[in-house]
Amino acid sequence: MNREGQQQPKAKQLKGEEVAKHNNREDCWVIVHGRAYDVTAFLPEHPGGPNIILKYAGKDATETYEPIHPPDTLDKYLDKSKHLGEVNMSTVKQDQKEEDPDEQERQERIRRMPILEQCYNLMDFEAVARRVMKKTAWAYYSSGADDEITMRENHTAFHKIWFRPRILVDVEKIDLSTTMLGTKVDIPFYVTATALGKLGNPEGEVILTRGAKKHNVVQMIPTLASCSFDEIVDAKEGDQAQWLQLYVNRDREITKRIVQHAEKRGVKGLFITVDAPQLGRREKDMRSKFSDVGSNVQNTGGHDVDRSQGAARAISSFIDPALSWKDIPWFQSITKMPILLKGVQRVEDVIRAVEMGVQGVVLSNHGGRQLDFARSGIEVLAEVMPVLRERGWESRIEIFVDGGIRRATDIIKALCLGANGVGIGRPFLYAMSAYGLPGVDRAMQLLKDEMEMNMRLIGCSSIDQLNPSLVDTRGLSLHSTTVPADTLGLNVYDALAGPQSKSKL
Amino acid sequence: MNREGQQQPKAKQLKGEEVAKHNNREDCWVIVHGRAYDVTAFLPEHPGGPNIILKYAGKDATETYEPIHPPDTLDKYLDKSKHLGEVNMSTVKQDQKEEDPDEQERQERIRRMPILEQCYNLMDFEAVARRVMKKTAWAYYSSGADDEITMRENHTAFHKIWFRPRILVDVEKIDLSTTMLGTKVDIPFYVTATALGKLGNPEGEVILTRGAKKHNVVQMIPTLASCSFDEIVDAKEGDQAQWLQLYVNRDREITKRIVQHAEKRGVKGLFITVDAPQLGRREKDMRSKFSDVGSNVQNTGGHDVDRSQGAARAISSFIDPALSWKDIPWFQSITKMPILLKGVQRVEDVIRAVEMGVQGVVLSNHGGRQLDFARSGIEVLAEVMPVLRERGWESRIEIFVDGGIRRATDIIKALCLGANGVGIGRPFLYAMSAYGLPGVDRAMQLLKDEMEMNMRLIGCSSIDQLNPSLVDTRGLSLHSTTVPADTLGLNVYDALAGPQSKSKL
Amino acid sequence: MNREGQQQPKAKQLKGEEVAKHNNREDCWVIVHGRAYDVTAFLPEHPGGPNIILKYAGKDATETYEPIHPPDTLDKYLDKSKHLGEVNMSTVKQDQKEEDPDEQERQERIRRMPILEQCYNLMDFEAVARRVMKKTAWAYYSSGADDEITMRENHTAFHKIWFRPRILVDVEKIDLSTTMLGTKVDIPFYVTATALGKLGNPEGEVILTRGAKKHNVVQMIPTLASCSFDEIVDAKEGDQAQWLQLYVNRDREITKRIVQHAEKRGVKGLFITVDAPQLGRREKDMRSKFSDVGSNVQNTGGHDVDRSQGAARAISSFIDPALSWKDIPWFQSITKMPILLKGVQRVEDVIRAVEMGVQGVVLSNHGGRQLDFARSGIEVLAEVMPVLRERGWESRIEIFVDGGIRRATDIIKALCLGANGVGIGRPFLYAMSAYGLPGVDRAMQLLKDEMEMNMRLIGCSSIDQLNPSLVDTRGLSLHSTTVPADTLGLNVYDALAGPQSKSKL
Amino acid sequence: MNREGQQQPKAKQLKGEEVAKHNNREDCWVIVHGRAYDVTAFLPEHPGGPNIILKYAGKDATETYEPIHPPDTLDKYLDKSKHLGEVNMSTVKQDQKEEDPDEQERQERIRRMPILEQCYNLMDFEAVARRVMKKTAWAYYSSGADDEITMRENHTAFHKIWFRPRILVDVEKIDLSTTMLGTKVDIPFYVTATALGKLGNPEGEVILTRGAKKHNVVQMIPTLASCSFDEIVDAKEGDQAQWLQLYVNRDREITKRIVQHAEKRGVKGLFITVDAPQLGRREKDMRSKFSDVGSNVQNTGGHDVDRSQGAARAISSFIDPALSWKDIPWFQSITKMPILLKGVQRVEDVIRAVEMGVQGVVLSNHGGRQLDFARSGIEVLAEVMPVLRERGWESRIEIFVDGGIRRATDIIKALCLGANGVGIGRPFLYAMSAYGLPGVDRAMQLLKDEMEMNMRLIGCSSIDQLNPSLVDTRGLSLHSTTVPADTLGLNVYDALAGPQSKSKL
Repeated sequence: MNREGQQQPKAKQLKGEEVAKHNNREDCWVIVHGRAYDVTAFLPEHPGGPNIILKYAGKDATETYEPIHPPDTLDKYLDKSKHLGEVNMSTVKQDQKEEDPDEQERQERIRRMPILEQCYNLMDFEAVARRVMKKTAWAYYSSGADDEITMRENHTAFHKIWFRPRILVDVEKIDLSTTMLGTKVDIPFYVTATALGKLGNPEGEVILTRGAKKHNVVQMIPTLASCSFDEIVDAKEGDQAQWLQLYVNRDREITKRIVQHAEKRGVKGLFITVDAPQLGRREKDMRSKFSDVGSNVQNTGGHDVDRSQGAARAISSFIDPALSWKDIPWFQSITKMPILLKGVQRVEDVIRAVEMGVQGVVLSNHGGRQLDFARSGIEVLAEVMPVLRERGWESRIEIFVDGGIRRATDIIKALCLGANGVGIGRPFLYAMSAYGLPGVDRAMQLLKDEMEMNMRLIGCSSIDQLNPSLVDTRGLSLHSTTVPADTLGLNVYDALAGPQSKSKL
Repeated sequence: MNREGQQQPKAKQLKGEEVAKHNNREDCWVIVHGRAYDVTAFLPEHPGGPNIILKYAGKDATETYEPIHPPDTLDKYLDKSKHLGEVNMSTVKQDQKEEDPDEQERQERIRRMPILEQCYNLMDFEAVARRVMKKTAWAYYSSGADDEITMRENHTAFHKIWFRPRILVDVEKIDLSTTMLGTKVDIPFYVTATALGKLGNPEGEVILTRGAKKHNVVQMIPTLASCSFDEIVDAKEGDQAQWLQLYVNRDREITKRIVQHAEKRGVKGLFITVDAPQLGRREKDMRSKFSDVGSNVQNTGGHDVDRSQGAARAISSFIDPALSWKDIPWFQSITKMPILLKGVQRVEDVIRAVEMGVQGVVLSNHGGRQLDFARSGIEVLAEVMPVLRERGWESRIEIFVDGGIRRATDIIKALCLGANGVGIGRPFLYAMSAYGLPGVDRAMQLLKDEMEMNMRLIGCSSIDQLNPSLVDTRGLSLHSTTVPADTLGLNVYDALAGPQSKSKL
Repeated sequence: MNREGQQQPKAKQLKGEEVAKHNNREDCWVIVHGRAYDVTAFLPEHPGGPNIILKYAGKDATETYEPIHPPDTLDKYLDKSKHLGEVNMSTVKQDQKEEDPDEQERQERIRRMPILEQCYNLMDFEAVARRVMKKTAWAYYSSGADDEITMRENHTAFHKIWFRPRILVDVEKIDLSTTMLGTKVDIPFYVTATALGKLGNPEGEVILTRGAKKHNVVQMIPTLASCSFDEIVDAKEGDQAQWLQLYVNRDREITKRIVQHAEKRGVKGLFITVDAPQLGRREKDMRSKFSDVGSNVQNTGGHDVDRSQGAARAISSFIDPALSWKDIPWFQSITKMPILLKGVQRVEDVIRAVEMGVQGVVLSNHGGRQLDFARSGIEVLAEVMPVLRERGWESRIEIFVDGGIRRATDIIKALCLGANGVGIGRPFLYAMSAYGLPGVDRAMQLLKDEMEMNMRLIGCSSIDQLNPSLVDTRGLSLHSTTVPADTLGLNVYDALAGPQSKSKL
Repeated sequence: MNREGQQQPKAKQLKGEEVAKHNNREDCWVIVHGRAYDVTAFLPEHPGGPNIILKYAGKDATETYEPIHPPDTLDKYLDKSKHLGEVNMSTVKQDQKEEDPDEQERQERIRRMPILEQCYNLMDFEAVARRVMKKTAWAYYSSGADDEITMRENHTAFHKIWFRPRILVDVEKIDLSTTMLGTKVDIPFYVTATALGKLGNPEGEVILTRGAKKHNVVQMIPTLASCSFDEIVDAKEGDQAQWLQLYVNRDREITKRIVQHAEKRGVKGLFITVDAPQLGRREKDMRSKFSDVGSNVQNTGGHDVDRSQGAARAISSFIDPALSWKDIPWFQSITKMPILLKGVQRVEDVIRAVEMGVQGVVLSNHGGRQLDFARSGIEVLAEVMPVLRERGWESRIEIFVDGGIRRATDIIKALCLGANGVGIGRPFLYAMSAYGLPGVDRAMQLLKDEMEMNMRLIGCSSIDQLNPSLVDTRGLSLHSTTVPADTLGLNVYDALAGPQSKSKL
């Protein structure tokens, strides 16, 4: 915010009529939190595309702006000369809100929400969130790339792994604690980075910070958070550990500033996203509304008009598609934080990562939001570990997996195969969206309870006992479909039916 | 029951108003079968959790208490000093029963029940039981762990085994008899242990005893029966054989007493449950009703409140999570009964069992009620037998399998692969719940008829002729899923349809 | 029929009232085609069980009797002394037929039947038959054993075989003709034996005889035909070839008489059924009606009451369960017809058949009506042929396959793998039941047209060009199921949807 | 058209009544575009069968004739002596058009069509086309052979191929261009040949010509286009490249004329169809209407009456079933255009094609419209390339694939495996049918946008970087089905359900 603006007397407030005149692509003002901004020059650079701003040209954009921009956004990205000062909000014409039957139904669903105690597993939070979230917010969180095959495969892949449990082991005391990048945690999962937390809850990512604290797990702070980085760091307590997920900007100075600021603020690990040189097409999200907010923030290349302008436009400046292995030494030169690559998808690149001296990798396909038909992280893990073990390299690097984890059995499977820990994203977003912090708390507790029980049932009392002999992965890497259905044959088959009740008396 | 209480004159009966005052956690009395008990101190130890008792604090709990506690429970577990004597039941205020539309519909379904002769296979009893059982009882019997993947896999696994039948063998006379732990039986299945028989039928497990007698098969008596152990033993006739399923108590003296009592009463085999150091989460059961009775008896760790109290609470004292291989010699020292491990799930542990000198194992995952993604017993059998045969150990141990058996072909498959017999649990519970003893009788007879027929059709006239060359198990160990559905593609595909009838004249 | 009876004057006709007195198990008369019979002594021997006869004790049974007994049945199986002579039918009380709403609906469906030209493939006839056949007749034809897994697998198995077609081969002229057991046929299928043709069409199996003639294929005459053997042989024209399917009677003299009579009447091949020492349980059929006729004819052991009487009862005298390899030389001694074993299901038995000098085998599981989880004939074929070829025995025996053939591609697949021909049963029954001879004719013509086209498309102009390199069978022998469905996961997944239409204007 | 006819004065016009007299098989006139033709002698030669013409005997056939005959058809195929001259159309009785409720509903659906921008992928166009196309046109485009297993498998096969993407590669600039048969194209797909474009859009194939120009891809001109060959060539602009798909006529002179005319007109490649010695049975199409137009054009053998006349009739003269490898040198002698075989389906034939010196092959099964259970082109590709590479022949021939391509990932998969490019047919037809040229334009643009993004996400910046290590094809060649469904088991299973909402307040 413009300092001078803060000192201006009320008399100098802008009037609604004045702002309303600047309502087109050549001359575009918007009001945010009671202040006017001239965004004309910024329009073509807006990561979410110009259209969504133009919709509010000359008007108050606060409600739409709020959930998807950290509070320091305007200060950071808009030159102070464009900060036009306070607006007398009583002079601003309010759009008559139409009655929206969808919204009314949603409010009804909120009134009838199940109580928190009715959620017995992570899927339950998702079921509730789906009913009570705004449609566009749901679409943004829940969508995946293209046909969403990879997104669904992520969880399904765990179903191809079966246990070979041990019996008659003393499992009275179960210790779920382990260490990730030197941090002792109570259970081997971390809260992975997901964007735009305020779409689900007005407080945003700091709720996840508090949940992570309560259960002593690490939170990975997303570049595209709704809260500002500092707000999220400020929300941590004591020696709570946080990591940073990083989209690398074309302008390496910006990146350097972000990285070094994070290190100064105590962040314990730098996770460079390497699976998103361009952000994926999420059609469910695109379809959810033309003028949808969420859909455009990341889908910089997804909007029709923009797409037809080709690649240059499709690549937003805040993610550098030219990022390559050659950049790794530079990162190593600017920070002492452990550096990890997030989004590695084949063993060859894990080998290379070890050779480059990075501290870890996350085997991940970005929650199925980028390349469809990318394999699941857990499948890649099963490909990676035998090769690392053969070379004796398994302790030269930490291996994390994310994508599709919903049950403690999923966590255990990953650890049996050799992962140091797993990242969980959407489930906590859904828990937060439906029930706030208590939801996140319960979700984490459910995982702990499930995991303690399953550790007992698999015959292991501590994390270091988990090993490959406890799982059967023979079906894991088979991507098959069945022969297309025999429609005519099925039509004429008379399915078996059980005993019929007597007809009503 | 308090002996003195029995001698008290009517004048000394307690009044309802008096009992009703003790209606909270700090002071809690309940009435069972016309007698009052002070259970305040017992509340925290109740395996089903305190809440379910508190619901009846100061009231008559008989109806709920009855089906899930053996008659000797109060004598065994509640100190005589807490037995408060008879209550004048006419002074006890009866809860006005609300009209329950669900219950009315169930009564209507009972009136329209198919007659017994309409049940042609074991699934049919389940279909009827599902309609006529109380919802909570059905939920308790039918539920499995987590996503119930293992529970369903148990039967499905048999579908991956196909026959290679022999032809032109004289199969006029079929002999289904075989020997299990030295007992001659008429057909190679036994009634395996399942808890809380009175939920399905007021008489409880003794019905199974009678059914087993009629068809000359062994019944395994469950630790958690609704009838008392002695009632079940008393119900046997002649030289009828019974086995005991044992949950090992932390207090080994209790366990010793149970085991030696069983041996004295003529029990022919001791099956130590090794797949349940903690009882599994059965969400369907938990969800069926918050205040549900059945759901809490075993799910000692499943209730929300309790779970959040962590592991100490989650482990009920009556199952010792510290049970380990080291305990086996002790068992061998206290009994001469054959000792078997129930719930073995991988070949390494079968090998170890042989080395420890136990007489047998049951390859089982507890009917899919414990660890989800545990493999089916039949799959483990296919892993175990070749290893045993290679070592020449196949006759050093008896191998049983349970889980998912519904057809005589399932039994034959298990025996072809090398099992000595199979355990069947839920199907007989369902037959009993729907039709009582005649249901159990018919269910067993159907299996015999199916098996006799299928022995003929596979070309074997006696059990000892069954061998691995008669089955094709190549698909058995493949745990695969298909690629997630191509939703958009399926949406636009116009399925084929057969010839259309003329429009109505 | 009683000769004397035939000579009795009208005055001597029995009266309805007289017959009606003999209406119980101890004294049971029935009327068939205007004549009375004392069947009291025969009751326990009736292959369909006594109950179905008792239903008509003292009454006219003609309508039920007719479709399921060849005309010479009473002469053959009931001693002449029990033939009581003509009945004055005007004195017989007619059962008041109840109005049957099911039957009325069926009549309506018949009125609206698609015309024959709307049937474009074999499944279409089945679709029509299902709508227009009597429910019990449909249940008898369409049912399979147990869970009907094998019955469905039979056709599904063909879906696992894919083509590797040749191109640029001159396929102007296609010759579909081949030779089976020395008979030249126009296309390599034969009409295999199926029981009780009159359930579908009042004329019965002779319709199939005429259809087979028209398309120059062989008909296999069933032991359990509705028409008598001689009627079916009489219906053949010119040098039309027929084979005989034989259930071997315990009384070998009866069998000998049947076989030698068949040879005398010109039958060209003897197919001894070896997969039915006991007839299978077809629950769909059993369920279709308690008092159902069709269901009892073969399911001699299937009826509840009877089943509980055990094995002795379950084995009908007309099929000898003791039939074994030792009987084969005897068959070879009583006939010069080629002898084939119908129902062979593994390579070991094919080898043995060759060694015994039989002329052929039918790889078959009896249309899925006997042993559930028997593999499909086509799968067994893929197991058998490489072994035969390795030994150089492929021309020492003719190999046929039946079960699940619905498309010409199925026939071609079987021939590519090495079969000499395939048997087709139910599809022609359905065509006959829906449309009579024109239906059978069209069904056969459709197969010819399909086959001619597909021969062109696979790049072969004659049967002898078909060979294993033209098919890919790698998936054939895999009997897998997918991991049980992830119910909760599927519930919360928001399926993709295409573009929405505008709301109605 | 008859030149003299054009010069006749109005007075000489034929009258409707006159034409109407010639209304039977022995004497059949029809009116097309205001002129009468005597087609009596042509009836038996009509590729679509005589019935469809007879329906218009003595009447105006223009509306039905128009979309499925190129404008020069009558001149080419009907002797001038049969051109009878102009008709006074005011004297022609118009058939009273019945109100067709289906058509009214379709018109309503057209009014409510989604706008073009709502189509986000190729399936979306199909979804819209299905709603707005005429039923018979939809049936013609969308149908496949027999059970349509191959048609569906074509796209499904791509789902069995998964990516192994590279990370940290500079993918700022993506170059999608490549070369096909010497022509530089902007993206490695071409518009493959599909028949009867006017069924979907009155302008027909020239729309595809314009779309191909706009995106600089090659169009393959179909023999059975609705537009004439010259119209389509005339529609190209500048150096736009076109290829010709050829059905080889029995009369090689006709074929020679077509080929040499194409070469003269600048066509750059000759694709000889080798998978259609006879046109396939497409039952969906046949069923869509008895008198349907589209269904008969290609299904010359499909109509009942015709089929029963056997093979001679079934083979239309315009496709020579005798075409064989021996004809290839002749083609090489009559043209200098590159010669390619379209419809190759196994590696042996690719080898042979290389040996014969042809320039390329298209691995294709004709869009699943010919032989059912033919494998997908992409699967054949995976069989072919390793063999070619082993011989070092991969650059001696260009390999194309078509069938089932719907996503840019499908294109990338084919190129990774070694294809030079892929053909896309139906999706552009659907885009054209729903939205005309803008639809085709957007469809192509969407593919480009998808492909550019996916190239980035797979870590490749140009086509030549695509290679087999980027894909996992282990599941590709497995054609399996699952064991038939356990109907009874599924019936009795109580599926899990999530938390229930409170009942309505």
